[in-house]
Amino acid sequence: MIQQADLQYFESIVGKENVYSDKAHLIAYSYDATRERFEPDAVVFPRSEEDVSKILKYCNEKRIIIVPRGAGSGFTGGALPSNGGIVLAMEKHMNKILEIDMKNMVAVVQPGVINMDLQRAVEEVGLFYPPDPASQEYSTIGGNVSENAGGMRAAKYGITKDYVMATRAVLPNGDIIKAGKRTIKDVAGYNISGILIASEGTLAVLTEITLKLIPKPKMTKTAMGIFPTVTEAMNAVYKTMASGITPVAMEFLDNLTIRAVEQTYHKGLPIDAGALLVTDVDGNLEEDLNFQLAQIEKVFRENGCSEFKIAKDAQESKDLWFARRNASPSLSVYGSKKLNEDITVPRAVLPELLEKFYAIADKYQIKIPCFGHTGDGNVHTNVMVDGKDPEQVKIGYQAIEEVFQATIDLGGTLSGEHGIGLAKAPYMHMAFTPEEMALFGSIKKAFDPNNILNPSKMGLQ
Amino acid sequence: MIQQADLQYFESIVGKENVYSDKAHLIAYSYDATRERFEPDAVVFPRSEEDVSKILKYCNEKRIIIVPRGAGSGFTGGALPSNGGIVLAMEKHMNKILEIDMKNMVAVVQPGVINMDLQRAVEEVGLFYPPDPASQEYSTIGGNVSENAGGMRAAKYGITKDYVMATRAVLPNGDIIKAGKRTIKDVAGYNISGILIASEGTLAVLTEITLKLIPKPKMTKTAMGIFPTVTEAMNAVYKTMASGITPVAMEFLDNLTIRAVEQTYHKGLPIDAGALLVTDVDGNLEEDLNFQLAQIEKVFRENGCSEFKIAKDAQESKDLWFARRNASPSLSVYGSKKLNEDITVPRAVLPELLEKFYAIADKYQIKIPCFGHTGDGNVHTNVMVDGKDPEQVKIGYQAIEEVFQATIDLGGTLSGEHGIGLAKAPYMHMAFTPEEMALFGSIKKAFDPNNILNPSKMGLQ
Repeated sequence: MIQQADLQYFESIVGKENVYSDKAHLIAYSYDATRERFEPDAVVFPRSEEDVSKILKYCNEKRIIIVPRGAGSGFTGGALPSNGGIVLAMEKHMNKILEIDMKNMVAVVQPGVINMDLQRAVEEVGLFYPPDPASQEYSTIGGNVSENAGGMRAAKYGITKDYVMATRAVLPNGDIIKAGKRTIKDVAGYNISGILIASEGTLAVLTEITLKLIPKPKMTKTAMGIFPTVTEAMNAVYKTMASGITPVAMEFLDNLTIRAVEQTYHKGLPIDAGALLVTDVDGNLEEDLNFQLAQIEKVFRENGCSEFKIAKDAQESKDLWFARRNASPSLSVYGSKKLNEDITVPRAVLPELLEKFYAIADKYQIKIPCFGHTGDGNVHTNVMVDGKDPEQVKIGYQAIEEVFQATIDLGGTLSGEHGIGLAKAPYMHMAFTPEEMALFGSIKKAFDPNNILNPSKMGLQ
Repeated sequence: MIQQADLQYFESIVGKENVYSDKAHLIAYSYDATRERFEPDAVVFPRSEEDVSKILKYCNEKRIIIVPRGAGSGFTGGALPSNGGIVLAMEKHMNKILEIDMKNMVAVVQPGVINMDLQRAVEEVGLFYPPDPASQEYSTIGGNVSENAGGMRAAKYGITKDYVMATRAVLPNGDIIKAGKRTIKDVAGYNISGILIASEGTLAVLTEITLKLIPKPKMTKTAMGIFPTVTEAMNAVYKTMASGITPVAMEFLDNLTIRAVEQTYHKGLPIDAGALLVTDVDGNLEEDLNFQLAQIEKVFRENGCSEFKIAKDAQESKDLWFARRNASPSLSVYGSKKLNEDITVPRAVLPELLEKFYAIADKYQIKIPCFGHTGDGNVHTNVMVDGKDPEQVKIGYQAIEEVFQATIDLGGTLSGEHGIGLAKAPYMHMAFTPEEMALFGSIKKAFDPNNILNPSKMGLQ
């Protein structure tokens, strides 16, 4: 437990106005996008890397737990102070875009910068930061790096880790380290940035992130294909990519999701379709976009696509994207509680995976609507139950376990972009051997021997 | 020292025909592309992951040093048994392409597969593995991953780490671990593959590597620009990229390098030019390639390019590339000993960096011809001295130290693609703080507590 003397020490570092232990603050920093609640003992807003270093050094000596936090928008509890301690909140002061280096096409940011603010700032100067998690309007780059956030554009442009060139971070003992350079190539020393990405704030506290930017493609076009069955749509996905076309995004909605959106918004969607695919292509030349779309249409048609529509302008593009953008909230028509997972498999097994998911739904007499980023094999799988019925909730969790098992059996992962945190920790043993978990533990110990940094996450101690 | 009983144990695992301690083998496995020589105590050729596991477990218990080895083509001594022990040579048995999964665009290989064999195999089925280190005809994928090899195509396509999706590896204690999936997105657990890349065989022994493949672009075109000064050429490099064009490669030769190639091959090269830039663009459409080349010519001309030539066919392309391809061996005209480094900086400081290098050459009255991968800021810097003159060699090493300091001062790295190994270990303290070196040591210890795996590399114990 935090003592008064500890709070006074923190105040001496960051000022009284940046240390809080009143109930309102403890509640405000007790939650994220899960429904779990854990109150910290205090909330501290560091103003600088030096503040972070002093706080960590002190907490390491006193064995006080530190939980770093960006926007608190995570889906798996990564930023929740489940064992109490200090929440180290980066959004108040450490939220600056420090530099947009146009000559080297690099951005340097503090961890509390909001993803969309960065996207907008770089697009203003003709550059592009592709990672676009659904939370982009509020999630922070520090959080994105800590969870290795993905998004819709991953099929073509990859995910957060593909854009992190360098990091500055503070180790639990207070040491400040730099890793990486503003260069594509750098092979001196261990790849520290590589292990910090997706480490969920368990190894070090990020204080500065250098991100690769790319030229902003001059144009984008949107198309939509309607498929009689979800299997045909899933075949079309991987066959499109294997045919040599890499769309920016290739997103799908299954029949249940289409029906949910239609029931909610009445847009005239094809409620008997097995699946919809919505895709964006981009480039610098009209000819190139048309070439890509022609190839996509060809593969779609060969795989049963009954209707293929290309948006003529921005408004039509928005219309084609409407169903996908509004899929998630619409699903409440199927139940008050949504157990949503973000499992990911190699694209070619998507048809088989979805068959297995629907079989699980049949077995338990529940609905499992699916949608998401099929272009990279990432399926948002939603087990819908009545949250007020404990029996239903129990059945839901049984179904989730089978969803994970089917995913793992097909060479997939528990999480494509949300991370493990607390929510998926109980399933880590399904995906990793005791030897692999022991290695994770050794790495954790190498960075954080006293286990003060975000303990109990990722299935670790 | 290895005992007879140890050799007998290894023979019991892999068979008599895969364990050698005769002088011929010890010499054959004592070298790499540096001129250093260190004989191992024995050479062992594992046939499988299980062999590797048993050998490591035994050596860990007996504290016998293991040095994993691919082709032994490294430039920094990463595969040299500088402390004796066993060389674990992967090229004899663990050299299979296990699978080319066209549906998911993934290749699964053993570490001993030769880079070019993989490139050819995947190109036969319309796919593409971009990393192309200059050693591609003989270096192995295991070595490429261990050093995070780059190459000419990095400017557009990135480096080895951008293609490693998953690894299987054996820890020093014999534990077999899997890390990663055949998916773009996977955020479950620490990024073990990420830390194994570029770890120079110091953390684990790779036994299987899953690589991302991409569609093979349908066409490539080559162009060359002649510049009056190297500064103008370097400005043209970063301004081309910042203008929104990403060529596959953008390589340069400075005046000294041009003269060396001309003196050696008499090709009619422009020996008074300050620099040559050779560039490749690729894509699926003629229009797209022409668009890229027009933009490159525009930026080149704006930056002083006096002649811009586009190759009309494959032969002309080969001719334009001739000088670059033959740069390295030609440099012997300047001295019998070449201290060649592969420093890398953010592209926009290339003009300033080269000025500094030539000033160092002037100061020591030596020649430092430079060429290389300017598209990604990677400059092959060659300090040329008379190898028979100890005073000259000493001066050469003084110059190298100043080359590194200039690089670091401009935000660059000791190595873009060759690694640290033994050769650059003495310079690690220039690039990393004691705290950062301590962290590397902790990570090493987490994987290899008994320090049996490739000790003394990368400036570690």
